[in-house]
Amino acid sequence: MLELKQLAALAAVIEEQSFDKAARRLFITQSAVSQRLKQLEDRLGQTLVIRTSPIQATEAGRQAMKHYRQVMMLQNELLHDLSPQEDKGFAHISIGINADSLQTWFIDAVSPLLLEHQLLLDLKVDDQEQTHHLLRTGEVMGCITSSPEPMQGCSCIPLGVMPYRCLASPDYIQRFFPDGVSAEAFRYAPVAEFNNKDELQNRYLKTFFGIEASEYPRHRIPSSDPYFQMVIRGFACGMIPDQQSKAQLKQGIVQDLTPGRYMAVPLYWHVWNLKSATIKLLTEQLINTCQQQLDSIANHPELIHPQPIRR
Amino acid sequence: MLELKQLAALAAVIEEQSFDKAARRLFITQSAVSQRLKQLEDRLGQTLVIRTSPIQATEAGRQAMKHYRQVMMLQNELLHDLSPQEDKGFAHISIGINADSLQTWFIDAVSPLLLEHQLLLDLKVDDQEQTHHLLRTGEVMGCITSSPEPMQGCSCIPLGVMPYRCLASPDYIQRFFPDGVSAEAFRYAPVAEFNNKDELQNRYLKTFFGIEASEYPRHRIPSSDPYFQMVIRGFACGMIPDQQSKAQLKQGIVQDLTPGRYMAVPLYWHVWNLKSATIKLLTEQLINTCQQQLDSIANHPELIHPQPIRR
Repeated sequence: MLELKQLAALAAVIEEQSFDKAARRLFITQSAVSQRLKQLEDRLGQTLVIRTSPIQATEAGRQAMKHYRQVMMLQNELLHDLSPQEDKGFAHISIGINADSLQTWFIDAVSPLLLEHQLLLDLKVDDQEQTHHLLRTGEVMGCITSSPEPMQGCSCIPLGVMPYRCLASPDYIQRFFPDGVSAEAFRYAPVAEFNNKDELQNRYLKTFFGIEASEYPRHRIPSSDPYFQMVIRGFACGMIPDQQSKAQLKQGIVQDLTPGRYMAVPLYWHVWNLKSATIKLLTEQLINTCQQQLDSIANHPELIHPQPIRR
Repeated sequence: MLELKQLAALAAVIEEQSFDKAARRLFITQSAVSQRLKQLEDRLGQTLVIRTSPIQATEAGRQAMKHYRQVMMLQNELLHDLSPQEDKGFAHISIGINADSLQTWFIDAVSPLLLEHQLLLDLKVDDQEQTHHLLRTGEVMGCITSSPEPMQGCSCIPLGVMPYRCLASPDYIQRFFPDGVSAEAFRYAPVAEFNNKDELQNRYLKTFFGIEASEYPRHRIPSSDPYFQMVIRGFACGMIPDQQSKAQLKQGIVQDLTPGRYMAVPLYWHVWNLKSATIKLLTEQLINTCQQQLDSIANHPELIHPQPIRR
C-alpha cells in the first residue's frame, strides 16, 4: 500500500514546482517534504521528479500524481457523503477548457452545482493539446476540446457544435469592403486571431476565398471578450461563436460577412472513467446545458473530419 | 554586416519552433532555412538554436532575434514614411500585457492609433515574469506590468494605479456573511482567484483579516470577464479593479465587502529605448488614457513597496 501523505508531498512538489513552496503549503519542513518524496521513490523504485529549477515530474511521477488525485477525489466524496449536512466541506473539480466555452456557456452549465454541491472550480484555459496533456497527467479530471480522440482511462462524450461566423461592424465593412467581400479586399482588411495557434480565421479564408495565412493582415488578441470588442469597435473582422454574438448580431452592432459560410466546431467532454458522483452530476449538467445552448452535431455533416480548435 | 534574410530565418525558426513551419512561412525550402541559419551561426561564431523538438533558442539566438525585430521595426517605419499615402502598409506592434488591463482600458488607449496609423496588435497575455521575459528576448517591444524594475535597453514609465476591491453580490453576502464580514466567515466563503499565481486575494485577506492562503475555499477562473461573472452571479467574492466594476457597483449588482480597504496595483509601461515614431505615439496614447482611466500614484502612499501582479 502507498502512503497518501507521501503522494501528497509528490503532488505538492509537482504543482508548486518547488520544495520550499510545497513545504509551506503542507505546513511541514522542506526536509520532511524531501524525505516523504524519497520514501515514495524508494517504494516505487522510480525517480518521480527531476530536481531542477523549476522541478519537473518524470512520467512515473505524473502517473503517481494522477493516481493520488483520483484517490483524493473518491475520498472527498466519501467524507462528504458521511458528514452531517451542516458540516459538508467543499469539493474541488479541475477542468481544462477552451477560452470561448468559458466565455459563453460553461458557467451556465455548472451554476446549478456550485452552491448546492459546494463545488470549487479549478479551471485551466489553454489550447486542446495542452488540456489533453493535463488530463493525461491527472492535473485535470476532465477537459472540453474539439478533439474526439479517445484518451486512456477516460470517456469521450460529444456535447454539440459551436458555429463560428466571420463577423464585422457596419463601419468596418463600409471601410474595407465597399465593393463587397472578396479575396482581393481581404489583403488590406485586418483580421483578428486569438493567438498564433488559432487557425479558425485561416481555415475560413482558405476554404471560402482560397487565401493563405501569409496574405492577410492580422491582430492577435488572446482573450475572448477583448477579441470580440475589437470586432465590435470596427478594428477587425474575426470568427465569433454564435453563443457569444447573438445579442450584437440581432441589434446590428455586428454583421455576418458571408451569410451561410461558417466554420462548425464540435466540442467533446473527456472525463476520467471513475465511479464518482461528482463526475456523474457534472457530466449530466454539461450535456443538458449544451443540448440547449449548442447546435446538434447531426445538423453539421461537414464535421466528418473535424480539425482542432485552439481557443 | 549581418544579412537580414539570415536573421529572418532565425526569427522564423524560433517563433514557429520548427524548421518546416519556418520554411512554409518564408516560402523557401527547409534546406534553405537550415543553410541561412548555419551561415548566421558561422558568422557569429555561436550556436543560435538548439535543434530539439520543439526548437529552442540559445541566449545568443535570443539576442540576435531581438536585434532583428528592432531593425525590422525601424525599417518598416522608414518604408511607411517613404511610401505614397494610398500604399502605406501595416505596422506590427507586439506587447506583453496583464489580463485585467486588456479587459479594461487597453483597447481604449490604442483605439485612436489602430486605423489612422494602420497598426496591427500582437498581444501576449501572461503574468509579469513571463512578459518581462518576452521583453528581454525581444518577442515584445513593450510590456505593461506592476513591476517598476528597470530592464536593460528599456524605459520604464509609470501609468497609474488600478485599485482592486473585494466585491460580491448581495445574495452572496447574505448567504456567507449574514453576521458581517469576519475572518471566521471567510473559512466557508468561496473566493475567486485568477490562477495559482494570482496573489491579490491572498494579500488582501492576510492584510486585513490575518488569513493564510490555506484557510479559505477558492475557485480558479483564469479569464477576466468570466471571473467577474462568477462574482456577479454570487458564486464567489473576488478582487476586481474599479475600471471593470464601475457600472455594476453603481447598479448594486455587486457591493464592496470592506469599503475603504483595497489593494492598489501600480502599472508601468516598459518599452524599448528606440527612436521610433510608433513607440513614441503609442507611449503618449498609453499615458493619456491612463491619466483619465487609472488613479494617480500620488494618491496611494502605501505603494512604496509594491508587489507583483500576476493577472
